[in-house]
Order: sequence, then structure tokens, then C-alpha cells
Amino acid sequence: MEFWYTEEWTDNVRFSIKVEKQLFSGKSDFQKVDVFESKEFGKFLTLDGLMMVTEKDEFIYHDMIVHVPMATNMNVKNVLVIGGGDGGTVRELSRYPQIEKIDMVEIDKMVVDVSKEYIDICACKLSDKRVNLYFEDGVEFVKNSKDKSYDLIIVDSTDPIGPGEGLFSVDFYNDCYRILTDEGILVNQNESPYFDFNAKEMKRAYDKINNLFPIAKVYQAHIPTYPSGHWLFGFASKKFDPVKDQNREKWEDLKLKTKYYNSDIHFGAFMLPQYVKEMLNANE
Amino acid sequence: MEFWYTEEWTDNVRFSIKVEKQLFSGKSDFQKVDVFESKEFGKFLTLDGLMMVTEKDEFIYHDMIVHVPMATNMNVKNVLVIGGGDGGTVRELSRYPQIEKIDMVEIDKMVVDVSKEYIDICACKLSDKRVNLYFEDGVEFVKNSKDKSYDLIIVDSTDPIGPGEGLFSVDFYNDCYRILTDEGILVNQNESPYFDFNAKEMKRAYDKINNLFPIAKVYQAHIPTYPSGHWLFGFASKKFDPVKDQNREKWEDLKLKTKYYNSDIHFGAFMLPQYVKEMLNANE
Repeated sequence: MEFWYTEEWTDNVRFSIKVEKQLFSGKSDFQKVDVFESKEFGKFLTLDGLMMVTEKDEFIYHDMIVHVPMATNMNVKNVLVIGGGDGGTVRELSRYPQIEKIDMVEIDKMVVDVSKEYIDICACKLSDKRVNLYFEDGVEFVKNSKDKSYDLIIVDSTDPIGPGEGLFSVDFYNDCYRILTDEGILVNQNESPYFDFNAKEMKRAYDKINNLFPIAKVYQAHIPTYPSGHWLFGFASKKFDPVKDQNREKWEDLKLKTKYYNSDIHFGAFMLPQYVKEMLNANE
Repeated sequence: MEFWYTEEWTDNVRFSIKVEKQLFSGKSDFQKVDVFESKEFGKFLTLDGLMMVTEKDEFIYHDMIVHVPMATNMNVKNVLVIGGGDGGTVRELSRYPQIEKIDMVEIDKMVVDVSKEYIDICACKLSDKRVNLYFEDGVEFVKNSKDKSYDLIIVDSTDPIGPGEGLFSVDFYNDCYRILTDEGILVNQNESPYFDFNAKEMKRAYDKINNLFPIAKVYQAHIPTYPSGHWLFGFASKKFDPVKDQNREKWEDLKLKTKYYNSDIHFGAFMLPQYVKEMLNANE
């Protein structure tokens, strides 16, 4: 008998992966957590039945959420990661010697534990000396943070339903703005422009961020295991423009080996299809 | 009872669309031809059970296969389209007043007839006065063409299995080269880099073209209904570099309304992920 993992991208569209076996299934205080093993994508983690990360293509998401801001401001020293329990974002951050501190705030300890046990290519760097791991609600964490001390905040969240909902709120973005330095950058996973549900949330998140930050842009990547495969990230900053201020040479001097990111796709990713541009520019 | 169209992207990955009803099913001399109606994608056409075109996202494919070469050489007058039976490519070409002649060679008349009847947003321009429609094998057509007369050849083909196979052969590309003018451009749908089957065919096609043409590049688009959603096109030319020779202002002067293509994504699409660059550069 064949076993297939199926995700409903919309009521009328399904994406299915043939599963060799289920490695874990549990229910945390926040969500359902599952790990499967597949031939095509290797091991993969789902939360409440939605794809979070696969071994085959996690490099795309993590390259793009980390290297784009890092190559824009090469002086980032103090980073806050909200979510990111699979550990991939911290893994990429930990490759930069100039980073002195990474606070990671993940609401669900089970996600970290399960990722460490089953998908260890991602979570191996959570034990880096510079990393402080907090199992707390990210919304509360930024609300209670006093200092304007982070050079970079990465919101590596789930969709805006369930535990991730507050990470798409104006109050949350306001707190992020407050605790970012004057050179601060906020990057968030920003849904997809293609299917109506994701596109509506994408636009709502962008409008909120665009109202707060002097610079707010959106960039894209091909992530085949997310709905439509056309995924967006938000880039907001008090000072830096990710295209004009890209440090191509300095970043290349680091000689980081990457599989998706490179200096060309850094700015290419900000070149958006016309319909996405029009969505972003439409009046709220 | 629900009715779903399911495509096997690989042996282990399926993409499924809920179908309201099947509008057509037939078998031509070359392939199985089906048209379905769906809520998410509108009407869509499949050949031998593989997705060709949907009303929701055909603009992405047709924008990118036509406007990239047209904005690179604004003096294209004489065009050959191989395949493209749904009519979308000719529709976009017909918007350029400087084009004097479009020869379209589609092996399968049933594809044109069915597209005209059911998916008429695509095929409406096949009756443009400049269009000559040939129901022939594209491989034979270019072999029998004598003159070096085309400024642009667009290979709007199926995958390299079934009737489209010859359109990925060295002999075919050789004939294309021979009948292109000294300013000639060849654009082809060039599969996807993501799943092994497509990636292998992508690389094979690129290597063959790269061996023949002084300029050979690959560019990408987000096409959610094709396997992985990460789709590539090949751009080859005797003279023009699509990035350096882009006519941004001249193209914008035409004031063509597009939904995917714009002057930014023209060059952004050539900025490829690192793993795709490495595939293209790998020794044959």
C-alpha cells in the first residue's frame, strides 16, 4: 500500500508527496508536528499539516532569508530570529564571523527537538556559542525587549494562522522597529502572490511594514514545496536599500559556498513580475 | 463525487487540480488531447496527460517566451513559431507592429482546433493577416527551409518525449541556426532545473544550443502549473546579449500592457540560482 502526504494548497489544488515512512507524529501545546521520510525530498517537517521544511530544498529558503540581508549590511553583529525552529536560519547566520550574538525565539520546543533528532542538517548549529535559544512567544519577546539593539530581525514564521498569527500584526512590527538599530533590517517570510489566500496575507503584511519603514521591498524565490512554488520575502530597513547597497565584493570575499544565493540573484530576486508589483502598489 | 486531474511530476510527486467538468477528450494522430474546466485555473489543456496551458497562468509563459527576445531586438520582422498550438505565443507576437510575418508550424491541428473552440483567449490572433499556419512537423519544416530569413525562432514545444522529441535534437538546432539571420535569436522552452528528469533534459538542450550559438543563456519564470513551478527558457543568438542589449526604453515606448513581463524582470530572469548556474557550467 502506498502512503502519500497531501497538502491542500487551496480548496481546489493539492500537492502530494509519496512517503516511505512517518518518523514522528506529535501534538505540542501549539500545533501538530509531523516528520516524514520521502524519496524525492528526503525527510520533511510539517506543522498542522503544512509543509515547513524538506531536506531537498530547505537551502533555497534559508539562503534567501539570511544572505540577502547579510550581504546588504556586512556589519550586522546582533541578530534576532523569530521562529525558525528547524534551525536552518541559524545555521546560515552562524557562517558569518562578524555576527556576535543570535537570539532565537521559538514558541514551540517540540519543533526544535524534533528537528534536531530527525532533520539534523538544519539544527546542528543551534549549539553555536553565539546562539541564545528562548522558548517563548516572539510577540511577547519583542514587546518586552527594551533596547534598540538588533541590527537584523528575521521573522522565520509559519503562515498567519495558528501560532504564527501575531507575527503578522502591526503591534509586532512596531516592536521590531523599536528594537532595531538605526541601521536595522527586518526580513520576513512573506507568503506567495499566486493563490488568493496567500496573496491577501502577503499584501496585508507588506502594507503594514511599508507604513512603518522608510524602505520596504519584496523579493522572490523558487521554493517548489510551498504553495505555487513562488514564494516571497519582505525586506524592510531604516537605512539600507537591498539593491543599491548590496556589498557584492565584500560578500564574495567571504567565500561562502551556497546552492541558491549568489550575488546576481541577490538583486535579480527583487525584480518582480508586473502583477506582483501592481498588487504591492495597489491602495490598501 | 469529486473529479481531480492529477499529474505525476515525478514517480513520487503529484500535482492535482479539482475539475468541474471535462470539456473535451480526443486522440489525434500524435497525442491525447484533453480540456478541463476548473475553479482555480479556469479552462486548461493537457497533452498526453501533461499540463500545457491554463487560463489562470498562461500569461506568465507567453509573456516570457515572447517579450524577452522582442525587447532584445526591436527590429524583429520575420518570426517562426514551432509548436504553440494554443495560440498564446502568436497572440503576444501579434501585438508588435514591426513584425511583418509569423510562420507558425504546429504538428497537431487538433490542438489548434480545440484551443480555438475552448480556450479562445489564446487562439484568437491566429487569424491575424501576418500569420501563416502550417500543420507540419517542425523538424521537417526547418530542414526544408532554404533561406536565412528568420529574425526570431520560438520553440514553444512539449517535453522531449512524444511528438516534441525531435525539437530537442542537434539536427533541429542546426537547421534553426542555418535559417536565422545574422541578428537571429532562438528562444525555446527549456524545462526545469528542479526534478531530475526535467533537469537532465534541460542540461542536454542547453549544451546542444551552447555548442552552436555564440551567445547562449537561460532565463527563468515562476509557472506554478509546470513541474516544480520553476521553469526555464533558453535564449540563443548570433549577435544579441539579452541582458546587455535590452532595449528598455524603446520597449516601454510601445506601452504594451503585460501581467508578468516588465523591463526589470527582463534582466532579473537571467539571474539564476547558484545550483542552476553550476548545472549549466558543468562539463557535458
